[in-house]
Amino acid sequence: MQFKKVVDDIRSLRIQGAENIARESVTALYHIIHKSKADKAQDLLSELHEAHSTLINARPTEPCMRNALKYVFSNINEHDIIRLIRDLDTNIEYVMHYFDKAEKTIAEIGSRKVHDKSIIFTHCHSSTVMMILAKAKFSGRSFRVHNTETRPLFQGRITAKELSALGIKVSHFIDSSARLALKKADMFLFGADAIQSDGRIINKIGTELFLEVAEKYDIPSFACTVSWKLDPMSIYGVDEPIENRRKQEVWEKPPKNVTIMNPAFEILDPKLVTGVISELGVYRPGVFVDEVRRTQPWMF
Amino acid sequence: MQFKKVVDDIRSLRIQGAENIARESVTALYHIIHKSKADKAQDLLSELHEAHSTLINARPTEPCMRNALKYVFSNINEHDIIRLIRDLDTNIEYVMHYFDKAEKTIAEIGSRKVHDKSIIFTHCHSSTVMMILAKAKFSGRSFRVHNTETRPLFQGRITAKELSALGIKVSHFIDSSARLALKKADMFLFGADAIQSDGRIINKIGTELFLEVAEKYDIPSFACTVSWKLDPMSIYGVDEPIENRRKQEVWEKPPKNVTIMNPAFEILDPKLVTGVISELGVYRPGVFVDEVRRTQPWMF
Amino acid sequence: MQFKKVVDDIRSLRIQGAENIARESVTALYHIIHKSKADKAQDLLSELHEAHSTLINARPTEPCMRNALKYVFSNINEHDIIRLIRDLDTNIEYVMHYFDKAEKTIAEIGSRKVHDKSIIFTHCHSSTVMMILAKAKFSGRSFRVHNTETRPLFQGRITAKELSALGIKVSHFIDSSARLALKKADMFLFGADAIQSDGRIINKIGTELFLEVAEKYDIPSFACTVSWKLDPMSIYGVDEPIENRRKQEVWEKPPKNVTIMNPAFEILDPKLVTGVISELGVYRPGVFVDEVRRTQPWMF
Amino acid sequence: MQFKKVVDDIRSLRIQGAENIARESVTALYHIIHKSKADKAQDLLSELHEAHSTLINARPTEPCMRNALKYVFSNINEHDIIRLIRDLDTNIEYVMHYFDKAEKTIAEIGSRKVHDKSIIFTHCHSSTVMMILAKAKFSGRSFRVHNTETRPLFQGRITAKELSALGIKVSHFIDSSARLALKKADMFLFGADAIQSDGRIINKIGTELFLEVAEKYDIPSFACTVSWKLDPMSIYGVDEPIENRRKQEVWEKPPKNVTIMNPAFEILDPKLVTGVISELGVYRPGVFVDEVRRTQPWMF
Amino acid sequence: MQFKKVVDDIRSLRIQGAENIARESVTALYHIIHKSKADKAQDLLSELHEAHSTLINARPTEPCMRNALKYVFSNINEHDIIRLIRDLDTNIEYVMHYFDKAEKTIAEIGSRKVHDKSIIFTHCHSSTVMMILAKAKFSGRSFRVHNTETRPLFQGRITAKELSALGIKVSHFIDSSARLALKKADMFLFGADAIQSDGRIINKIGTELFLEVAEKYDIPSFACTVSWKLDPMSIYGVDEPIENRRKQEVWEKPPKNVTIMNPAFEILDPKLVTGVISELGVYRPGVFVDEVRRTQPWMF
Amino acid sequence: MQFKKVVDDIRSLRIQGAENIARESVTALYHIIHKSKADKAQDLLSELHEAHSTLINARPTEPCMRNALKYVFSNINEHDIIRLIRDLDTNIEYVMHYFDKAEKTIAEIGSRKVHDKSIIFTHCHSSTVMMILAKAKFSGRSFRVHNTETRPLFQGRITAKELSALGIKVSHFIDSSARLALKKADMFLFGADAIQSDGRIINKIGTELFLEVAEKYDIPSFACTVSWKLDPMSIYGVDEPIENRRKQEVWEKPPKNVTIMNPAFEILDPKLVTGVISELGVYRPGVFVDEVRRTQPWMF
Repeated sequence: MQFKKVVDDIRSLRIQGAENIARESVTALYHIIHKSKADKAQDLLSELHEAHSTLINARPTEPCMRNALKYVFSNINEHDIIRLIRDLDTNIEYVMHYFDKAEKTIAEIGSRKVHDKSIIFTHCHSSTVMMILAKAKFSGRSFRVHNTETRPLFQGRITAKELSALGIKVSHFIDSSARLALKKADMFLFGADAIQSDGRIINKIGTELFLEVAEKYDIPSFACTVSWKLDPMSIYGVDEPIENRRKQEVWEKPPKNVTIMNPAFEILDPKLVTGVISELGVYRPGVFVDEVRRTQPWMF
Repeated sequence: MQFKKVVDDIRSLRIQGAENIARESVTALYHIIHKSKADKAQDLLSELHEAHSTLINARPTEPCMRNALKYVFSNINEHDIIRLIRDLDTNIEYVMHYFDKAEKTIAEIGSRKVHDKSIIFTHCHSSTVMMILAKAKFSGRSFRVHNTETRPLFQGRITAKELSALGIKVSHFIDSSARLALKKADMFLFGADAIQSDGRIINKIGTELFLEVAEKYDIPSFACTVSWKLDPMSIYGVDEPIENRRKQEVWEKPPKNVTIMNPAFEILDPKLVTGVISELGVYRPGVFVDEVRRTQPWMF
Repeated sequence: MQFKKVVDDIRSLRIQGAENIARESVTALYHIIHKSKADKAQDLLSELHEAHSTLINARPTEPCMRNALKYVFSNINEHDIIRLIRDLDTNIEYVMHYFDKAEKTIAEIGSRKVHDKSIIFTHCHSSTVMMILAKAKFSGRSFRVHNTETRPLFQGRITAKELSALGIKVSHFIDSSARLALKKADMFLFGADAIQSDGRIINKIGTELFLEVAEKYDIPSFACTVSWKLDPMSIYGVDEPIENRRKQEVWEKPPKNVTIMNPAFEILDPKLVTGVISELGVYRPGVFVDEVRRTQPWMF
Repeated sequence: MQFKKVVDDIRSLRIQGAENIARESVTALYHIIHKSKADKAQDLLSELHEAHSTLINARPTEPCMRNALKYVFSNINEHDIIRLIRDLDTNIEYVMHYFDKAEKTIAEIGSRKVHDKSIIFTHCHSSTVMMILAKAKFSGRSFRVHNTETRPLFQGRITAKELSALGIKVSHFIDSSARLALKKADMFLFGADAIQSDGRIINKIGTELFLEVAEKYDIPSFACTVSWKLDPMSIYGVDEPIENRRKQEVWEKPPKNVTIMNPAFEILDPKLVTGVISELGVYRPGVFVDEVRRTQPWMF
Repeated sequence: MQFKKVVDDIRSLRIQGAENIARESVTALYHIIHKSKADKAQDLLSELHEAHSTLINARPTEPCMRNALKYVFSNINEHDIIRLIRDLDTNIEYVMHYFDKAEKTIAEIGSRKVHDKSIIFTHCHSSTVMMILAKAKFSGRSFRVHNTETRPLFQGRITAKELSALGIKVSHFIDSSARLALKKADMFLFGADAIQSDGRIINKIGTELFLEVAEKYDIPSFACTVSWKLDPMSIYGVDEPIENRRKQEVWEKPPKNVTIMNPAFEILDPKLVTGVISELGVYRPGVFVDEVRRTQPWMF
Repeated sequence: MQFKKVVDDIRSLRIQGAENIARESVTALYHIIHKSKADKAQDLLSELHEAHSTLINARPTEPCMRNALKYVFSNINEHDIIRLIRDLDTNIEYVMHYFDKAEKTIAEIGSRKVHDKSIIFTHCHSSTVMMILAKAKFSGRSFRVHNTETRPLFQGRITAKELSALGIKVSHFIDSSARLALKKADMFLFGADAIQSDGRIINKIGTELFLEVAEKYDIPSFACTVSWKLDPMSIYGVDEPIENRRKQEVWEKPPKNVTIMNPAFEILDPKLVTGVISELGVYRPGVFVDEVRRTQPWMF
């Protein structure tokens, strides 16, 4: 069955990227709605709530998915099955449309900051950063990217390959030489996995180390992300747990006595981040949180 | 012929480690001396001077080799072939003996700083650091090592394997997560490829990045090295060129538009280094330079 | 008379803690209302306004009391004595209820940040921090507290005693050794006496010194406070004066030529504070100010 | 013609100061409205839109002028020429009134932060800072100003002369000795040319250098500015270009081989700024942006 | 017996101050020499070596005492009892004379740095710093001292009393308000318990915290000490253990669950120390170590 | 008379540059020696000692002159007038020769650090730095210089003109924009007026401000100076007074109430200086002091 596969793919990391996961999970609900044999609103809702829980448990650290699913259940008629389905469909369509439009807006806004003849530093692989750079290239600006290989999974190679295909020049560095890459750069762009109410951003391990270097060399740094990655639970003190990945990613067969540490993410101090580029505009991390509150009250 | 092979091995990096290269190059001179058919001091010397130049050009960034070769030619009778050979042999023996003794002394001194129940951070692979840790283990102290994998050549795995064989517990980190490794550590030990007269130390790329983290967290850091790695040329303003290694070490077949940067070393700010542990004792980098001047005047 | 005693107790520091002072001063108004012989609204109001001034002058640096008193006078019928008394009673009840609920919410939110097996650093004695730690303990988490003795009045001993009674393990440090206490800690929690519109927080002397250490060691720090400690006057540039306490607190009989300096508080740079934990949630200091504006418009 | 002269004066820097430029440009529109022979709303509007473009192009880096002009065109009847003129006049009057009142409010708020017997540091010449200092003087406070000469145009001498005329004592420093001036100061006040949505402030070259010194010595720093200098375009990623001034300002006839660099402004990191003092109150730079959004929605 | 009492007094901290301990221990040897009934050099020496060990074990963290005792045994005739006694007496006299002269020289050198109308910050109580300040006062300079109370034993009160008796004005601060004391100061003088070969200095807990503040505010800091506090063992990697004092010093009867931490000393990063003022002159910590090596070869 | 003119020229700053002053003052002694009518050694010496005092008082802050004059009086026969004159002449010749050779050596050593295609930052005008740059240019290296105008006397224009004449490209910046100049630079070279025994260097105001920027951006910085600028008095705690220059240099006629501050020099923290380039080689500031002691014992 379709739904189970989506859940499995989310759990096993076959589906990656916070926005992709959000889209797939919402699509999974869509399929449940339209395959369901329920003829009472309450029955459909209880099927959906179970699916909701299953999806969230498949990846408990994804506020973007949680927010998308929350939106699907907002402002729905809970008594009339016909209206319920119509409301759910409308909401699902809105989510898809919102992501499409947000992507374009972020690419547009972010690309304005990629000046001609500049050097952009990036770490890991962020599809949002890629869209910004692609848009800047299509807008006729000529620039160079400095990127890290990003051990253990070498996502930096994916970044380099995609940029290469776009005709953008890349200088590719090992992670521990990133200071050389940053010293010559004019800006540091990176993605985000989640954002907390105190402005702290969760992203790939190494990002904060490179942010400290960027700050030392006075290089502006921007987290590039759709605003739905804000985690509303964090307002109430709930800390996002940091995922520890499989040891084999680092070293296939380490000798005995050797423990492999493989934390995939870290929490970034917002003091080190110049701004957040989202579909809402460019704001300091704290102000970004306020803007989300103001413009998207349903999230809270 | 023996000599040519040594030169080739040095040039092609088959022989690694500053001290090994110094020993091999001195041994190569020994073979030339004893295979030579020269019967005048001047003839033997001119053979040796040519070999000297060849060795230095095989690896122009190795002050330890340069110092060892310089010692071989110090205080020699340049007129009487019998006495010349005797003087050269004495000097060669002294060099070998000096390295043997220095190793033991450094292991002894350094191991006293590895306290029971402490955590030692190290980067890359340094045989001097390994000797210190082995000595500390043999002295009955129980400690843990945090180390980096050290891209691109994964020398950190060599470190981990050797420590594992010694029965020392290791936590192994990717380079970009080294801050986590350092935050819990009590001391940072690393090797050195060369030391300049202004106290700046040349070592594996990434070392200075980690030294900045160590300083932030108030973790003492020590360069562990035989004193002959001091580069006397640096007194006269000659900067050691930084070796750039083969791109294939980083990425076998990078796509077009992608330039691989592979600087192998960097120059460390001595402000970030607590001390140098050498066979002369434990001193600040600047004072270390003075101690070498005072105790080994032949080098200058 | 009751009222005079409360004013005296506030002035002489017999009543301590911003929230206690606010509650007592509101209660004092309650007694005036119900003992008053006024039979016109204007007469009662003029009695109350005089009491209001007297209370504020008894402790001119207490925004929490000022805000509570301001609330009592908000949205009242100023013409009809019956309705006026009813409105005032309603407002007084609201203030008491608000404090009760805020305390519980802050304890709930803050306690979620006290992770199992963590070490919490605190300075001085804050009843809000105590409630958070008590709640975390009751929630089954096991943690340790590192605290300072907090000269000159040793409020750190009150903290230690209360924690001891709760069965929480404490390591107790002299103030000048707080770096050792912080280096091993996972989080720094502290109270607040007042908060300015530029996000600067007023708290016990020493707090900023320890915040600088916390920042160096990357330890998150949170001010724990009910939101009513925001000082609305600060928006208009009015700086909170810093109280200087009695010299005898420091040294009973200092020799001649010796001047005792006893500043009780200092103003904290908001850059050094990770977030404010209040009943509104967890926010950066600047955003906290915005949230108070948004949710409590009557205060401005 | 009047309008052309204003445009010329704006372009040639004869009119200086963001607020002055805004006032003059709005006045220029007023003259066009009342000299126009248009008898249809559309005709007048198209005349005005052309004038609008001309004014903006005369000085493309002036958000204060852009905002003032935008206000003039907000909420107008676009169909009825009588009502259009009346609406435009009302708006123009509002702009003038707003600036008048804002100046007084800022002077009032800012002057409260100038404490008796304090030392205030300032760089360049800002009419807003001058109003604050004049107000503080008139309020009876005694203080001293430390200021820089501000090469290349010595605007610091204008500041010194105006303060001298107000009877305020000044210590006058060359720019490179500003650390001495700051070390003894209690506060740093400076103006602003523009403010971006990420909180970064554009001001005279040298300001950020001195902000770094102020931060090191824990001296609070405030940007003093009317809120209309916020650049709403920056929300959408449009970076303000930094003006490069005439080389002759620095050196009349430099020898060949010598290139004169004369960047007039720089972008200030908001982390280094304690707060923004505007007619809205005293807020952190990020929160200031939010307050402008909240109180002046027409700007966005 | 005299000797046993001295050993007891050293062990029980009744004798305090590194130099006092050194003087008393040398005097104790003198008494042994002159009360001994040995008539062979070897017998006297073995008595003395036993006493030597006993003294060192009474206080294992006192390099000044170890150096003084080492000097007593340097260059002695070990075979002829008459000459042995004469040599020992000469050496003992030299030690006493050396300390007397060193004190005067340090007071002379240090006092030159105490400028008229300056403010000197100091922490704890150092007899060397007291001598410098007394000398500066006697030389007619007028200055003020800012000092800390120095919990837990309030040695800062001893400092304040002695300065008061000398007619020097003192401002006395609690330890956690030392930043205020330092911000206004022109120089920071402190003593030293021991100095390591890597330039790290051991002194009273809190000193490094205050050195970090001094560095931030660009206030020069000097360790004031006789050069014999250099620990020659540190060259060989032997780390000085840090003494932990009695818990009752901090809190007479702490409640259960509360552990008192009472580390008396800490190791100072030499980067934070402007210079060492000793009888050899004013040098950076690293260079100081070199000067001791050069001028007092018997110590190594 | 010749001598009086030299003294006047030194006092009135007509003779500038530490080395020039030293040469002129030694030449002045030469003239006294050869014009003197004394026929006894003691008479000549007393004439010379008076001249010595006069010269030193003409410029009390010039250790280079003091050292040169001290050398003239070292190792002289004080009894036989013939031998005395011969000894003095020999010493004077040595001083002149020493300066000539030192200049060449420093130019040679320093120029090796000026790499091809690099950017060198400098502040003010230092003849030693000029010699290094000229030598680098003559050695065929192509590089660019970034320099400051150096208010109030615009010595940076002298630097720019001389470089221009040598065919070296210059970018010329106002002092307060030096961060832009430094950010792109590869090295910072500056002169020195005096060096203290604790490694602190005295140089033109602004140098330390720029050294802090250089350190932030990891740009190596070197003081370029003949070693005779070391001030041996500083070993004994004598601090070099900082010269305050004429106010008219800054502003011809400042208005009343305005005090002009014109400190010409400042004391540089040696932590911020990578090394000292002198005729002795390239050393850390502390080690430089040691090398002077070792190689020039007559100075102490």
